[in-house]
Amino acid sequence: MTEAVANVRALTFDVFGTVVDWRSSIIDELEAFGRGKGIAADWAAFTDAWQGLYQPKLSPVREGKRPWTVLDVLHRESLDEVLARFKIEGLSEEEKDFLNRIWHRLRPWPDSVAGLNRLHVKYPLATLSNGNVALMMNLARHTRLPWDAILGAEVAGNYKPQPECYRTTVQMLGVQPAQAMLVAAHNGDLIAASKVGLRTAFVARPFEYGPHQQSDLEAEHPFDVIASDMVDLAVRLGC
Amino acid sequence: MTEAVANVRALTFDVFGTVVDWRSSIIDELEAFGRGKGIAADWAAFTDAWQGLYQPKLSPVREGKRPWTVLDVLHRESLDEVLARFKIEGLSEEEKDFLNRIWHRLRPWPDSVAGLNRLHVKYPLATLSNGNVALMMNLARHTRLPWDAILGAEVAGNYKPQPECYRTTVQMLGVQPAQAMLVAAHNGDLIAASKVGLRTAFVARPFEYGPHQQSDLEAEHPFDVIASDMVDLAVRLGC
Repeated sequence: MTEAVANVRALTFDVFGTVVDWRSSIIDELEAFGRGKGIAADWAAFTDAWQGLYQPKLSPVREGKRPWTVLDVLHRESLDEVLARFKIEGLSEEEKDFLNRIWHRLRPWPDSVAGLNRLHVKYPLATLSNGNVALMMNLARHTRLPWDAILGAEVAGNYKPQPECYRTTVQMLGVQPAQAMLVAAHNGDLIAASKVGLRTAFVARPFEYGPHQQSDLEAEHPFDVIASDMVDLAVRLGC
Repeated sequence: MTEAVANVRALTFDVFGTVVDWRSSIIDELEAFGRGKGIAADWAAFTDAWQGLYQPKLSPVREGKRPWTVLDVLHRESLDEVLARFKIEGLSEEEKDFLNRIWHRLRPWPDSVAGLNRLHVKYPLATLSNGNVALMMNLARHTRLPWDAILGAEVAGNYKPQPECYRTTVQMLGVQPAQAMLVAAHNGDLIAASKVGLRTAFVARPFEYGPHQQSDLEAEHPFDVIASDMVDLAVRLGC
């Protein structure tokens, strides 16, 4: 372990894609919902379309063109757009809310809970996600993720990759940026964190976007730690 | 259980005095520290003087006369004042930081961990304390308190009993005020929460301020639940 890594006193985590497998979870729930309602659709395409609106929805908030809006609300607006695009009509408000809350019920990757529990013995663990507090908290209760604190975008009032999101999270953890590490499956997220001074751990998730994923297949920068999954990360951090 | 209580979907907690026994924890640590350093003092009086500066230190921040300052910093300023008042000199910066962090190592009341673990099965649990995130997080790790989220003053940017502190906490939990309950040993805290619309549970802690406690010996208002301790609260909430 390098000295830089040995000085880390708290771990922060990207969640969507890094800790939980949003894509297959959403497809499975939509397929089950569709079967129950007698609605046929390409649910994988629906899921990709829904998630595809993530960045376009966040951008106006990041740029200050839209007042602070939590991810649950942005997810719901995107869902309504994609339902219209796929010509799925007649869902009740309750059903649409149920679908939107799939994001509160995502499955962890097979190694996540075991790896986080090992890391948790040695380090405080905090979320550093763009998901809002209620979403992150419900997800953690659903999947038994051992977070010590739910921080990130809503608490910081800024979405990643804005520096304030990383900076406020680290400050609230009571450590210096160099004493905190971001764990993420996304090169861009880690680069943004490293610019604020955080240590970085890349965890590969080559199937996050499905079998034909094109980006973030591997670490593209000399991050402090490069791990194959959360258990491997725990081993590399001496847990 | 009344209908109002049956509608509660998340529990929030005052921590100092309600969940942890700050006074006896601090006295014990100071006595041990004094013995080790050969410093004789009335450590109970020292503790009461230190905690006695809590409200005077918070007031200027609450009133906007001083920019936002986290409780760890206010505790440290108060500690320096009380050390001077008790004519205790020559402590290193490291020793003073160690003493200030006694607040991160407070003991729970004997029923707290058992009661919270029972409540946690049914309800999400969040802190709604004036303690900052790092303090609350370290305290939880030290004593194994099963919080789902660390919210309250620092995250809300307002100290209790300002309404924004309760309001922001509830909003981040993703529930309506009437779906959240504050659990506290202090009548004033609960009254302030009820004005924002939260449900209220009084848990008696008649020895928080030592054997001669004068106030908050019992519930002075018709709170939604009145419990003798956290296990009793769990029973009353059907856990």
